[in-house]
Amino acid sequence: MNFPLLKKFYADFAHYLAENQFSGCPETLYDSQNYILNLGGKRVRPIALLASLAAFQDDLAKGYQAALVFEVFHTFTLIHDDIMDNSPKRRGQPTVHEKYGLPTAILAGDNMLLYSYKYLARYPAGQNIALIELLTNTGILICEGQFMDMQFEKMQLVKDDEYVEMITLKTAVLLGACLKAGAIIGGGNSKDQENLYQFGVHLGISFQIMDDILDAFSDDEAVGKRKGGDIIANKKTLLLINAMVLANTKQLEKLNYWLSLNEFDDETKISSVLDIFSELNIRELAEEKMQFHYDKAMQYLSNMNLPANKANGLNELALFLKNRSF
Amino acid sequence: MNFPLLKKFYADFAHYLAENQFSGCPETLYDSQNYILNLGGKRVRPIALLASLAAFQDDLAKGYQAALVFEVFHTFTLIHDDIMDNSPKRRGQPTVHEKYGLPTAILAGDNMLLYSYKYLARYPAGQNIALIELLTNTGILICEGQFMDMQFEKMQLVKDDEYVEMITLKTAVLLGACLKAGAIIGGGNSKDQENLYQFGVHLGISFQIMDDILDAFSDDEAVGKRKGGDIIANKKTLLLINAMVLANTKQLEKLNYWLSLNEFDDETKISSVLDIFSELNIRELAEEKMQFHYDKAMQYLSNMNLPANKANGLNELALFLKNRSF
Repeated sequence: MNFPLLKKFYADFAHYLAENQFSGCPETLYDSQNYILNLGGKRVRPIALLASLAAFQDDLAKGYQAALVFEVFHTFTLIHDDIMDNSPKRRGQPTVHEKYGLPTAILAGDNMLLYSYKYLARYPAGQNIALIELLTNTGILICEGQFMDMQFEKMQLVKDDEYVEMITLKTAVLLGACLKAGAIIGGGNSKDQENLYQFGVHLGISFQIMDDILDAFSDDEAVGKRKGGDIIANKKTLLLINAMVLANTKQLEKLNYWLSLNEFDDETKISSVLDIFSELNIRELAEEKMQFHYDKAMQYLSNMNLPANKANGLNELALFLKNRSF
Repeated sequence: MNFPLLKKFYADFAHYLAENQFSGCPETLYDSQNYILNLGGKRVRPIALLASLAAFQDDLAKGYQAALVFEVFHTFTLIHDDIMDNSPKRRGQPTVHEKYGLPTAILAGDNMLLYSYKYLARYPAGQNIALIELLTNTGILICEGQFMDMQFEKMQLVKDDEYVEMITLKTAVLLGACLKAGAIIGGGNSKDQENLYQFGVHLGISFQIMDDILDAFSDDEAVGKRKGGDIIANKKTLLLINAMVLANTKQLEKLNYWLSLNEFDDETKISSVLDIFSELNIRELAEEKMQFHYDKAMQYLSNMNLPANKANGLNELALFLKNRSF
């Protein structure tokens, strides 16, 4: 698939990021911030912000700083999440707490959150406070979502709609915020801002559900995760949650058996759990839910009645997030 | 000693805090935030902000929200510092990570930082962004100071002025920021704001040096720390730093001996180190430095040419911080 606009946004942002690395004293603190920021990634949030801004104006220069803010902010959450999840690796490299130690990782995250505000405050009066309130409210929802996610891991049964609420808070609202930020900077009215926010939120939800589906069913190496990793880790995905609810006594027994084992053959566990998913049509259910939110996202986009050439970036974004590769 | 204005500020803030507890979902997250916020303390930062505001206007109602912000922000740094320092107790009670676990403690800190911005954004246009920039720049300095402090613990020798820079960043700038915030809210001009900021910074430095002195030399239970706790823990205080620099070969040998021991009798270590401090006039040196910054603080206050009745709260604050009890 070909996404010429997204590729341009990506390249422009990569250039801006390279020119705007952190610097300061103590050096090691700022090194740790640059380290994780430069580990790469698809830069979905900056790209989304620029795609949104492009719906309002051709010159995207004013968007770069906010695009950096949302990437820095997202990276702050990754550093702290990696500590909470005890993750040794991120994008195949040591996490910040692995490489620099726990205290530095906590501080680097805190400092990146503070720098997000430092950069946003530089926007013109009025715009800056709108962006700051957006980031703040979004950040609070993300904390709440991360907390819910941790609670879920300890719960026996999680409901379908609780799960969707959790992924909405933990990941989807940030995408919505990036899109709304583009509208704020581009001078969009409050209706545009709300439509783009909802477009992003629902796109984010469908993206996250797709993530669950791909982890279980994709053979694609491009996902960057081992196929079935969620199943091996007993992760409470939408798939497992639905299966636990829909399973009959015998299927539930089987599921609980595999969930309870501390030692197992990976392939046998994966195929056994996938068998149950298949008996219960779990994949189809998840795909339906994903499509529902994707359609909802596209409805919000079409509410805006953008001229076709203004919506190109946003349409590319939707397709890209559905298909996962440039 | 009697501080009628500070007592009033304290009571008013305590009342406001009680009426403005955190609430929200997930409950446990917000419970953990209230838990630490309600552990008590002298509320130095809110009091300082209100004392500053009182120099500009009699009605302090507009100051309470910002006073809460600075207490919430300070508490966020305590939660994360306690993790970094591996501290099990804070004000005699379990720290947040001890009581609620590490992940909740990280998130509670992050969320309290975000709420600080949420509350500041509610101030009138112009004032809000000034307060937000103040909090942001101060927060970044605090992160840098905390990082320096951690680096110092690993260094053999720390210089006197590096130490003062560290305590300036780690603790004094926040007091300066509270005083500046009072001036911003009270409509003080930029000269007033700067004078009050510097008043707070130098007061904060002298307070911190006093802390080092009291820990080593005070018999006062009111300090709330065990006498000599810093010496037992090999903490790089201004006293130890000066002693390491000024010691002759024999004294340095003795100091290093006590620093290197893993097991020792507390009282013997304390009195041996205090003997060396005494030989080197370390206490007098520290008191001189403390007095230097205290005088500097008072100079900045007098620069403002406040009418006597407007400066009462600020004068009480200076005396209170020098004497450490209402």
